[in-house]
Amino acid sequence: MINVGILGGTGYAGIELTRLLTKHSHVKIQTVVSQSFVGQKISDVYPNLRGILDIVCEALDIEKIVSSCDVVFTALPHGASKTVIPALLKKGLRVIDLSGDFRYNDATTYEKWYGEAHDHPELLAQSVYGLPELHRAAIQKTTLVGNPGCYTTCAILGLAPLLKNGLISLDNIIVDAKSGVSGAGRSTLLDNSFCECTENMKAYKLATHRHTSEIEQEYSLLAGQDVMISFSPHLVPMKRGILNTIYANLKGKHTADQLVALYQAYFKHEFFVRIYPNGTLPETNHVAGSNFVDIGLVVDERLNRVIVVSAIDNLIKGAAGQAVQNMNILFDLDEKTGLDHAGLYL
Amino acid sequence: MINVGILGGTGYAGIELTRLLTKHSHVKIQTVVSQSFVGQKISDVYPNLRGILDIVCEALDIEKIVSSCDVVFTALPHGASKTVIPALLKKGLRVIDLSGDFRYNDATTYEKWYGEAHDHPELLAQSVYGLPELHRAAIQKTTLVGNPGCYTTCAILGLAPLLKNGLISLDNIIVDAKSGVSGAGRSTLLDNSFCECTENMKAYKLATHRHTSEIEQEYSLLAGQDVMISFSPHLVPMKRGILNTIYANLKGKHTADQLVALYQAYFKHEFFVRIYPNGTLPETNHVAGSNFVDIGLVVDERLNRVIVVSAIDNLIKGAAGQAVQNMNILFDLDEKTGLDHAGLYL
Amino acid sequence: MINVGILGGTGYAGIELTRLLTKHSHVKIQTVVSQSFVGQKISDVYPNLRGILDIVCEALDIEKIVSSCDVVFTALPHGASKTVIPALLKKGLRVIDLSGDFRYNDATTYEKWYGEAHDHPELLAQSVYGLPELHRAAIQKTTLVGNPGCYTTCAILGLAPLLKNGLISLDNIIVDAKSGVSGAGRSTLLDNSFCECTENMKAYKLATHRHTSEIEQEYSLLAGQDVMISFSPHLVPMKRGILNTIYANLKGKHTADQLVALYQAYFKHEFFVRIYPNGTLPETNHVAGSNFVDIGLVVDERLNRVIVVSAIDNLIKGAAGQAVQNMNILFDLDEKTGLDHAGLYL
Amino acid sequence: MINVGILGGTGYAGIELTRLLTKHSHVKIQTVVSQSFVGQKISDVYPNLRGILDIVCEALDIEKIVSSCDVVFTALPHGASKTVIPALLKKGLRVIDLSGDFRYNDATTYEKWYGEAHDHPELLAQSVYGLPELHRAAIQKTTLVGNPGCYTTCAILGLAPLLKNGLISLDNIIVDAKSGVSGAGRSTLLDNSFCECTENMKAYKLATHRHTSEIEQEYSLLAGQDVMISFSPHLVPMKRGILNTIYANLKGKHTADQLVALYQAYFKHEFFVRIYPNGTLPETNHVAGSNFVDIGLVVDERLNRVIVVSAIDNLIKGAAGQAVQNMNILFDLDEKTGLDHAGLYL
Repeated sequence: MINVGILGGTGYAGIELTRLLTKHSHVKIQTVVSQSFVGQKISDVYPNLRGILDIVCEALDIEKIVSSCDVVFTALPHGASKTVIPALLKKGLRVIDLSGDFRYNDATTYEKWYGEAHDHPELLAQSVYGLPELHRAAIQKTTLVGNPGCYTTCAILGLAPLLKNGLISLDNIIVDAKSGVSGAGRSTLLDNSFCECTENMKAYKLATHRHTSEIEQEYSLLAGQDVMISFSPHLVPMKRGILNTIYANLKGKHTADQLVALYQAYFKHEFFVRIYPNGTLPETNHVAGSNFVDIGLVVDERLNRVIVVSAIDNLIKGAAGQAVQNMNILFDLDEKTGLDHAGLYL
Repeated sequence: MINVGILGGTGYAGIELTRLLTKHSHVKIQTVVSQSFVGQKISDVYPNLRGILDIVCEALDIEKIVSSCDVVFTALPHGASKTVIPALLKKGLRVIDLSGDFRYNDATTYEKWYGEAHDHPELLAQSVYGLPELHRAAIQKTTLVGNPGCYTTCAILGLAPLLKNGLISLDNIIVDAKSGVSGAGRSTLLDNSFCECTENMKAYKLATHRHTSEIEQEYSLLAGQDVMISFSPHLVPMKRGILNTIYANLKGKHTADQLVALYQAYFKHEFFVRIYPNGTLPETNHVAGSNFVDIGLVVDERLNRVIVVSAIDNLIKGAAGQAVQNMNILFDLDEKTGLDHAGLYL
Repeated sequence: MINVGILGGTGYAGIELTRLLTKHSHVKIQTVVSQSFVGQKISDVYPNLRGILDIVCEALDIEKIVSSCDVVFTALPHGASKTVIPALLKKGLRVIDLSGDFRYNDATTYEKWYGEAHDHPELLAQSVYGLPELHRAAIQKTTLVGNPGCYTTCAILGLAPLLKNGLISLDNIIVDAKSGVSGAGRSTLLDNSFCECTENMKAYKLATHRHTSEIEQEYSLLAGQDVMISFSPHLVPMKRGILNTIYANLKGKHTADQLVALYQAYFKHEFFVRIYPNGTLPETNHVAGSNFVDIGLVVDERLNRVIVVSAIDNLIKGAAGQAVQNMNILFDLDEKTGLDHAGLYL
Repeated sequence: MINVGILGGTGYAGIELTRLLTKHSHVKIQTVVSQSFVGQKISDVYPNLRGILDIVCEALDIEKIVSSCDVVFTALPHGASKTVIPALLKKGLRVIDLSGDFRYNDATTYEKWYGEAHDHPELLAQSVYGLPELHRAAIQKTTLVGNPGCYTTCAILGLAPLLKNGLISLDNIIVDAKSGVSGAGRSTLLDNSFCECTENMKAYKLATHRHTSEIEQEYSLLAGQDVMISFSPHLVPMKRGILNTIYANLKGKHTADQLVALYQAYFKHEFFVRIYPNGTLPETNHVAGSNFVDIGLVVDERLNRVIVVSAIDNLIKGAAGQAVQNMNILFDLDEKTGLDHAGLYL
């Protein structure tokens, strides 16, 4: 059994991770750390867990974690894990970090988009961007995984085959992204209150959202040259789900059938990537509750432009599920363990 | 492995059952019958199942079912299963019927509330009302289970301890029930369209809903005498979930603490029933996605009245999950098999 | 023109009032006081008002209000208006208070349900409970209106004809109330966040909600004797709307047709009360966006029990619209002025 | 008073028009034609209208309409109005058609995108595209208005200043459009049922939606040359509202402040167009319930790309409100009559 610690277990990503791990056949949850709920049963905070997991939330105790855990998931607010992670790594634990801190190959990108110095630039050399479909081999060898953001997973996998094969122009890529509200985390901000969100739709952080830099890093790696994109996040009145609509100009002529075939070939060994037949497109209720990434596309022959639609559950493939997938890789388990269930549709 | 056939697999109860069974360690789905989608992959109808279950929907073929299945779930529209079930039973299969046809001890009750003659009154003697928490022993011995309705499961379990212990007056029991829209099934009725449902709330079929009779049958059995109740269904703008608020006048004085203790004792061996500590009440997102029934209560000392709040996921404990629970009983499996996961909360 | 001041204009009741008054042909809004947004345009806080009302939110300045206003609406948090209202009254202004402070005939009831001493018990003799359909004559003569709560308006009008005519037993009245989330005001509580509310339903404050006392006060007046009831509020995932399902045992035999006729007669001069024909029931989207109260009923002949369903828009007839209706009465305007529009349905 | 007839008054656009006209000070509704509800009160079909408008829905009777009406709104399914409109025009009535039939300058565009011959190409010379902000003078002189579609109004006004001033490249314009479900009309399609829509998001008709041709027609007129665009409609789980995110590459360097100033100048006489200050963006709840178009923008200096966000209420500025605005122009009324109210926000 893998002994697991979860730091920040009562945020939305943390509790989703906790929930998924309760059904993982090779995991024992040793500790859930939650500063806000120390001493309370996690099942009192999230009563859906009653009878399933009734352990008590603990304060952070590095010694205790080190002595009881093999791997730690850090789902802490941005910056909060900065002293913790080095301490855990030093003791030989593996760490899967759900914040943005270890998603970059280069501290300057981080500093540019986060507006502050990186606390542990030396760890960036060692950390791996935890998108298994692109970086599986590196993940297997690392001890520190920077688990990707929700928008980014959906955007990167959605365009990878076209970038890798050099089929699209790099100067007019637009990612128009739509997210459910849980992406904002367990929030008491007025903007995230029910009456402000329901029956409402908005764009936010256009041209400035931090995930832009993550997407550009991976797009550039795939393309073999620097890529800059428009990334436009939107908030829609639902809980789970991201739908990205990605626009790119084709360099040559390609039919939708050809591109679908290309995608199928590119992802043929990837259980969690499902390519849609020409004429059909993914919807978020196809993936909600699951670790799948669903991708479909349309070619607009009038404009020689491809439009890719990709969908994920932001809390699963966009956070907790991908973290479990990374853990499975770190521990040489079947990558699907604990994740091979269908979404709920309803 | 148990070989399973699902008749009516593409309605909402049917597809939920199919989804749950894809994760059941002792089940092989041999056939999904769906007259509307014969020849189509079930994963084209419900793309959440892609890569998980890609079998083709079939037309009804009794011979084929008999030769390949041990148990059949019938999730057909009311009346549609009338010739099918006797044929299956005659061949020795076990049948779990999700319609209202076999939920009654007595054809006259059925006929009064359904307004038509029962097609197979002789089977009612043999059929068992499939509420495991009340009728486990009988379910173990039967071959035909009448799987309870969604409102009724929630109402019956919510009041069982008080009725069984004779603590409440029987002439002022009121069940005010609120349901999500999926209870209406996969419907193209205008009343179930998004724009008519969202941001809307209504009562319907007050004093006339068929589930009244199911609840009264079981309340009467528990009380040892005939009980008549007010049952008031309401539709609220959400997908999954039923919340019942049940009112009853206490015969003697009892504190909430005493009654909570009584409930805990009554259900102490029931994994799927969770009793809330005094001062807390269930909400539908505590149970959504799971097979749990959550129950809390308040005593209004001014009026000497108890108010019980019970919650289930109408598609799971109110339909598909309970059907799986019944199958587990029929086949001497651990009753929790395939059902021991937490709800999603989000 | 009536010169109006609004204190607490940026909460949900306040902004709804402000919005309604922008279309009132006899009103000039002189000042909107909002401590949280002093110096900001109200149309920056609520951009729906851009181009319609662009005045700047002001700090509280009694002198200024007194010199510019004829009537003041106080939509302040509970307790905040305690020093303000006496000062305004002393200067001859009329006050319509949307808090719970002046809804009682008797300070002891207030103190029992609010758990604190009333700050101005002497004003209770002068204040009038602002439910025009019951207290129009008294409202006309007062200078201080205690504007009713949202649940209560819906509950009181829903049962008034039966109580007034002595047709129901007084000891088993149950008001099962369901409300949209805007009833909680502009809130940053976690419980009111989108992800905690959507796809969720719950009961809260059973047997202890303060509105119980308001309903009982008015039910008792109508019945001519003390009435105690069960009042059970529920939260449902929608913005606007309250639906009350009210249960009462009939003393004699009455058909639904007879009771509908009784209701129609009782309310025949009331523009804002709409009685539904037997066989139909109100839904919240029939009233959302309007000042109407819609009422329908069912008689359960098996139990000789009447079930009344009443619906309002909690922000309009349950708060801001009723406040405008009261203002119209205070100033001898046609009571419908500014309020005679249909709800939106969609 | 203007005597008005409404054909197709019980669809969502029709009923919204009817609702708006009940509050129009210069209108008398003479007839509401609804083939589905002949003989029923419109307030029985839409109970929000009870007490406001209780006229009976009628069958189509051209003679009667001609004798009683000055102007007719045709909100009929595509194609249904083809024989009706010429007959009405011949008799001297003015017609505002909410279908796509008379939105084109050129029958060939219609035929290409609708896949069928136009029934009355001769009327296209006479009909005017009813977008007042662009074609006010022509609307004043016509008798036949082709009332614009919902997506198109939002897209065209959102980009008009940039196109008219030649500031953007014409070959990479992308309109990523998100709509609430009411845009699909009063539908019984499974795709529009509550359980299929709520908590779900999807793209549809990418590169093929008919509104593309309307947008391109008007963009081309503004630019003075042919423009082709990507238009991508999406469905989001809400009732009212369209949000368009429009991408275009700037030809020269312009700051957001400069472009905002340009927009403000371009629309300075337009009551219904509200330009947002730099740093703020519209949301659909700013316009829901109103006839406003709200527009904000961002300049991505890294890419020299402008991103415009425009929002409307699809049923009002995108259908019924705009139709009323056109009627006001046809009859020389103040264009704001019946439309100068704020949206609801909540």
